[in-house]
Amino acid sequence: MFKINDNYLKLPGSYLFSNIAGKVAAYQEAHPDRELIRLGIGDVTQPLAPRIIETLHEAVDEMGHADTFKGYAPDLGYEFLRNAIARQDYQERGCRIQADEIFISDGAKCDSGNIQEIFSVDNRIAVCDPVYPVYVDTNVMAGRAGTYDPGTETWSDVIYMPCTAENGFIPDFPTEVPDIIYLCIPNNPTGTTLTRSQLQDWVDYANNVGAVIIYDAAYEAYITEENVPHSIYECKGAETCAIELRSFSKNAGFTGTRLGFTVVPKALKCGEVTLHSLWARRHGTKYNGAPYIIQKAGFACYSDEGRAQIKDQVAYYMRNARTIKEGLGAAGFEVYGGVNAPYIWLKTPNRMSSWDFFDYLLDKVGIVGTPGSGFGPSGEGYFRLTAFGSYENTLKAMERFKNI
Amino acid sequence: MFKINDNYLKLPGSYLFSNIAGKVAAYQEAHPDRELIRLGIGDVTQPLAPRIIETLHEAVDEMGHADTFKGYAPDLGYEFLRNAIARQDYQERGCRIQADEIFISDGAKCDSGNIQEIFSVDNRIAVCDPVYPVYVDTNVMAGRAGTYDPGTETWSDVIYMPCTAENGFIPDFPTEVPDIIYLCIPNNPTGTTLTRSQLQDWVDYANNVGAVIIYDAAYEAYITEENVPHSIYECKGAETCAIELRSFSKNAGFTGTRLGFTVVPKALKCGEVTLHSLWARRHGTKYNGAPYIIQKAGFACYSDEGRAQIKDQVAYYMRNARTIKEGLGAAGFEVYGGVNAPYIWLKTPNRMSSWDFFDYLLDKVGIVGTPGSGFGPSGEGYFRLTAFGSYENTLKAMERFKNI
Repeated sequence: MFKINDNYLKLPGSYLFSNIAGKVAAYQEAHPDRELIRLGIGDVTQPLAPRIIETLHEAVDEMGHADTFKGYAPDLGYEFLRNAIARQDYQERGCRIQADEIFISDGAKCDSGNIQEIFSVDNRIAVCDPVYPVYVDTNVMAGRAGTYDPGTETWSDVIYMPCTAENGFIPDFPTEVPDIIYLCIPNNPTGTTLTRSQLQDWVDYANNVGAVIIYDAAYEAYITEENVPHSIYECKGAETCAIELRSFSKNAGFTGTRLGFTVVPKALKCGEVTLHSLWARRHGTKYNGAPYIIQKAGFACYSDEGRAQIKDQVAYYMRNARTIKEGLGAAGFEVYGGVNAPYIWLKTPNRMSSWDFFDYLLDKVGIVGTPGSGFGPSGEGYFRLTAFGSYENTLKAMERFKNI
Repeated sequence: MFKINDNYLKLPGSYLFSNIAGKVAAYQEAHPDRELIRLGIGDVTQPLAPRIIETLHEAVDEMGHADTFKGYAPDLGYEFLRNAIARQDYQERGCRIQADEIFISDGAKCDSGNIQEIFSVDNRIAVCDPVYPVYVDTNVMAGRAGTYDPGTETWSDVIYMPCTAENGFIPDFPTEVPDIIYLCIPNNPTGTTLTRSQLQDWVDYANNVGAVIIYDAAYEAYITEENVPHSIYECKGAETCAIELRSFSKNAGFTGTRLGFTVVPKALKCGEVTLHSLWARRHGTKYNGAPYIIQKAGFACYSDEGRAQIKDQVAYYMRNARTIKEGLGAAGFEVYGGVNAPYIWLKTPNRMSSWDFFDYLLDKVGIVGTPGSGFGPSGEGYFRLTAFGSYENTLKAMERFKNI
């Protein structure tokens, strides 16, 4: 009789955002007239930029003619896109990343979930707490997390690095030495980040202890401050200890268009084995490339016109971030993030639990947010709002907050 | 110090088609004037059907306006697509599959590689030999295959079910009882298939021994004979033992467009746990949906116009299949497949090894095929050609075969 992977059964509840979507749908069904403002899931709302739309149309036309039709994509992704990424995202920032160290994918969520596969099941992972739940959940599925303690809401084999107002949301080096360190910078959910010298300390630490950093830079386009690096490869020595994940979802509005990439430098090795060769084997065996027309759309983001348009889009969302930050501040909330990230992280009022505040906001003012505790135990007592709504809805949400 | 998943190191060589692509590229570089005819990798060559192109343009326009823009897709995929699939692919054939048992994905390759994750590492897998290499390779990566014997080219913990001319390419029930049985029907690479009653025997066997069948039906659109089922759910009792994988790659030319789906009936359980709940958890946690515009393109395949157009495309490739089958037969080759599948499977002449014949064909007549041994040890001495070229190239290839 076949058996299941019972690591799955250890997972408490469903994936955070599936869970929230279910709750909101049930509430909306019970209150059909209620107008909800969704500042919960980090989903964009602005249409794709005109240059991207034009390129998509062109690529669709190519697929309609035998002489320009495209079948299976090259294993790592189309060279035109990898070259543009290598040049604009890395070489122009002084990072020595080559096009053949870049793997095009259908998004950073998949990559951040799949990357753990190339590592030993015995490795210990360390995560910032709170953080994007995919890192821990996928390590639970792989059997790398140990057992779950419902009391502390922690996994026995996961090393948690608390990031709270007390330490300015800067993780300390853990007392136990990890093998794999997940860093999501700028951070989801806290919206906080690391300066170049703070990140350099992490790179030095990883190289010293022989750990690999999975650096999720999905929000790098939202960085506004000079001393915050856009890539971990701006730090010296990162090529021998870091894998970087990037997404088109948040900088170009591709949440429903699906494109991302992962950088695995060839200098990153375990003994004689390059992690690049392992990821290439996984990519070639278990994946079959992002659609041609989507890769072309990604390429449009690197044209002069495309760059300018998506920059405007990021600015649009960052105006929302400022609006929320100022609005909540004026309403007396303790607020973090929102300067180098599209997320605003707030302390719940009157020591309410994160989920109580979720229910309260939904029911009293019709605003959907994300409970901080969903991102890890140190997120308890916090709450996340996103800047990805429309400006009008963001203003409306701030009006509603005034009445709390 | 972090460690790697050393199951990866057990894999001999690279993924079959990456390997062939590398060999062909090297040959072409050394012989730039040589005109190669590619009948190796199963990649389509005909442009997307007009109805699909129109729909893609419409969907792109939707993405360009705030009121029709789409962000993250629903976890299982858009309901419009799942409803069309449930109705046309299943209910109209008498299969009791519901829309919420269908999971939209970016293709059958990914699903066939990922599906093993929801099962215990201790489970024994059985595969037809020869078969599409992803099944074995991904189980090796997961640590389910044991050790590799280079002499026999087999894995110690994999149960092989030889399919050769001697047994008419019909697998026998294995002597050791498997937990997971991969069936690719119509078969890649042999192009052969099972009748309804033969498949019913497999369903009964699986239900009897408590095994689950991973039924890869990527080529069902190529079935021409009446007594060959298009879905395993045409067999009685399949809902309690089978997962079915489907692809848009081969029936609608989506190899470079990327769309597929997996059916996990809610009646399929291990004890009290439904495999549906596990796959839903994986889908929600490690995947973020196929692009909206691609899901719309898939939907176009179910319109009357779209159906007719993709049917014509399948007929175009099947004319190639007949051309190859008849051409090779006339040239004295022993030929199989090509009636219910776009693959032609031939015995190499003069007991040549599969790879020797690959090199011979490439060098002597400039035809790229796929060595049978790449699909498993019982594929040795066989060779695969695909019907996915243009008709003109297929005719030209047959001319070249005459001169061997």
